Amino acid sequence: MADNKKQVEAITSMEEDFAQWYTDVVKKAELVDYTSVKGCMVFKPAGYAIWELIQKQLDARFKETGVENVYLPMFIPESLLEKEKDHVEGFAPEVAWVTQGGLQPLSEKMCVRPTSETLFCDFYKNDVHSYRDLPKVYNQWCSVVRWEKETRPFLRSREFLWQEGHTIHATAEEAEERTVQMLNLYADFCEQVLAIPVVKGQKTEKEKFAGAEATYTIEALMHDGKALQSGTSHNFGDGFAKAFDITFADKDNTLKHPFQTSWGMTTRLIGAIIMVHGDNDGLVLPPLVAPTQICIIPIQQKKEGVLDKAYELRDMLKKNFRVKVDDTDKTPGFKFAEAEMRGYPIRIEIGPKDIEAGKCVICRRDTREKIEVNLDALETEVPAILEKIQKEMLERARTHRDAHTYTAATKEEFKNAFNTKAGFVKAMWCGCRECEDAIKEELSVTSRCIPFEQETIADTCVWCGKPAKKMLYWGRAY
Amino acid sequence: MADNKKQVEAITSMEEDFAQWYTDVVKKAELVDYTSVKGCMVFKPAGYAIWELIQKQLDARFKETGVENVYLPMFIPESLLEKEKDHVEGFAPEVAWVTQGGLQPLSEKMCVRPTSETLFCDFYKNDVHSYRDLPKVYNQWCSVVRWEKETRPFLRSREFLWQEGHTIHATAEEAEERTVQMLNLYADFCEQVLAIPVVKGQKTEKEKFAGAEATYTIEALMHDGKALQSGTSHNFGDGFAKAFDITFADKDNTLKHPFQTSWGMTTRLIGAIIMVHGDNDGLVLPPLVAPTQICIIPIQQKKEGVLDKAYELRDMLKKNFRVKVDDTDKTPGFKFAEAEMRGYPIRIEIGPKDIEAGKCVICRRDTREKIEVNLDALETEVPAILEKIQKEMLERARTHRDAHTYTAATKEEFKNAFNTKAGFVKAMWCGCRECEDAIKEELSVTSRCIPFEQETIADTCVWCGKPAKKMLYWGRAY
Repeated sequence: MADNKKQVEAITSMEEDFAQWYTDVVKKAELVDYTSVKGCMVFKPAGYAIWELIQKQLDARFKETGVENVYLPMFIPESLLEKEKDHVEGFAPEVAWVTQGGLQPLSEKMCVRPTSETLFCDFYKNDVHSYRDLPKVYNQWCSVVRWEKETRPFLRSREFLWQEGHTIHATAEEAEERTVQMLNLYADFCEQVLAIPVVKGQKTEKEKFAGAEATYTIEALMHDGKALQSGTSHNFGDGFAKAFDITFADKDNTLKHPFQTSWGMTTRLIGAIIMVHGDNDGLVLPPLVAPTQICIIPIQQKKEGVLDKAYELRDMLKKNFRVKVDDTDKTPGFKFAEAEMRGYPIRIEIGPKDIEAGKCVICRRDTREKIEVNLDALETEVPAILEKIQKEMLERARTHRDAHTYTAATKEEFKNAFNTKAGFVKAMWCGCRECEDAIKEELSVTSRCIPFEQETIADTCVWCGKPAKKMLYWGRAY
Repeated sequence: MADNKKQVEAITSMEEDFAQWYTDVVKKAELVDYTSVKGCMVFKPAGYAIWELIQKQLDARFKETGVENVYLPMFIPESLLEKEKDHVEGFAPEVAWVTQGGLQPLSEKMCVRPTSETLFCDFYKNDVHSYRDLPKVYNQWCSVVRWEKETRPFLRSREFLWQEGHTIHATAEEAEERTVQMLNLYADFCEQVLAIPVVKGQKTEKEKFAGAEATYTIEALMHDGKALQSGTSHNFGDGFAKAFDITFADKDNTLKHPFQTSWGMTTRLIGAIIMVHGDNDGLVLPPLVAPTQICIIPIQQKKEGVLDKAYELRDMLKKNFRVKVDDTDKTPGFKFAEAEMRGYPIRIEIGPKDIEAGKCVICRRDTREKIEVNLDALETEVPAILEKIQKEMLERARTHRDAHTYTAATKEEFKNAFNTKAGFVKAMWCGCRECEDAIKEELSVTSRCIPFEQETIADTCVWCGKPAKKMLYWGRAY
């Protein structure tokens, strides 16, 4: 392996500098590029193709639950954004404002959507009149803009791609049910498709979404022990409906305010894939979101029959898998290293001796395990190996996450955990904003969530010592 | 039919007022809604689902030709937009400008992309160094903004959805080949998927894209005899490469400027579908882009076994088709009219007597033909009927287009054609901008294209009488 590495530009090791390792991987695996537009990035084909696979599979799961896709404008007039007080306070400081259209100044400035609750409310106000019109379970795939100061590819950029679901219901119960349903859908998607285990829970009042009654979240742990908020689902109650004066005639013929939810996942998931699964040779992609699942690398490709055999295998496999042949004139060693950098789950090596023996070598990207496979058995072996990779990647990520999840019963244990370790720390909390603020101030860590699965670690708050109300997950977050 | 119509709000007839008919259809088929954001619209589920089907099938055709998807930022700094002179002159008057990010004014204003040639150039400048990096055949699906004064749903709005392909090549020949290849792909897509016949040709100098050396176009004829530019493909030569200083080291080790193309189709295609196929009962959707292909309407649905049978048929058909059951408590007559308004290609009627006789009635939306089908044969009859509808819709549209395509050899014939008829007029042209300007001024018609399939209608220009160089298609356009 060492020989191969010399042939591609090396990346910084994670242990040396995780942030630089991340930047190296996104660049050298050709996922993104920087642009002249500060804080915005280019999704290159290898990066965008991951997003397409996420979209396709997530969208199919949405539609199974009755979600319909729509598309609303990208601009929000200032007066609309201002209608819900908490919401505008949360978002106004970080929006981009359009003040001129064509050669004329606009009579009212508009922001580029940072999120579309206000637009959906404006739309629902005209579209919902009776209980017969409810529920509406809509989603849109689009880009949004938040004027961030510090940006990092996928994790935080001024423009990013996402989906935002916006639903409206006749009853509070139904809205709550949808909020939780989508959080569970997100969690299953992360685990089953991205091979990323998550903690499900509720955000504290301090950390919840601007304008929400309750925000639910899934939190993942990256390889460096930092947390990444990976998807959120909000229950707005009837707050937005009241602010926007949305009403419907219920079955009992009285006018009522409906109840709303929203939920979103973004291209930051690609950052999560990189930081959960990647290693010092580059990207490691879960098979279900790998744009290339199998890379066939011919050995001694100039010998007669080698390339033909490689193409034959590709044509056989491409019916069911995303497969390519690296038939460039680079050396096999260079091709191996490049295939590793790009995170292809399986590499198939085939040379003249293999062909003679009627076999080939499959090399797993995640474990480096080499498996000799008879060419006759390839069509059945490949799916089995891909499934195994997908499953074991989740297991490894879960083992890593669990090994880096600590408990702290006392303030000393809590401080000690964050001063000496990197990971989640579970600890009890009195429920006061003051403790949350003080912990953030002193340790630079934030409450990640009040997990749905509660445990009793102690009877008292880890910070103030008063009686504890909830167990929280704490962490340093991206 | 008359009875049913009373039960849904009638739409204006096309003959009475085509523009109002169009507006009624887009609203009553629930394709779009207007918003508080002037000139922007909401794509409702039934409208957006058509776009999703267009995207899916067009994207698959792109990928077969080696196209890779990417995503570039939505903002263009003013200095980038200004680099290519013709381009900025064409677009600057109709862009939206962002002047403030967060609470601060921007040091350089940025426009929301009206099209992304400049951003792709900026990207290629960093990404292309050697002939080994060429060609790059990229595309993005996104929304763009053009600050139009007059807007109409799908046809012209301040924000619209589209795809924009941007390619870069080592030779002028290869760029030209790709430009024509994509135009042909667009034409095939319109005919085979949207059932819309098109005329392929080149735009005149006057009508070509800002910054292009040559613009190719496909032009379709709407039911009212007006033309709709439905897709364009541009060859930029090395003009943008020179303006942006993009160079590559060629095989001969000299630095050269590469050659570029771009090509796009938009949500205006949905407007074309409405105006080519629709009738006085509403939308008529080609099966390949119909979000619901089959609507099963139970008759006497309260009788035992009727709804069960309807669901059974749905479950059988849903493996291969997009199908739903209208099990609402509306009357069958109302449901028929609604299914017609929404343009479902096939309606299946099934009641107690049908079930007893082991049959059902299929009603084609396009011809109103009713076909009795044995339930045993449904699975094979449905695909055959859908295929027939798709094919015949194209044939009917072609017949209409051909019947409304006129030829004019003299100025008198030309004027007379536009004064008494609505449609394409084919006529000879001397090649001068002056004639083109004068014709537009006097008759309010524009040159649609110089068709690839040339004919000789006369030896002299239809306007000035000088020797003719080309045959042109002329028309009133959306």
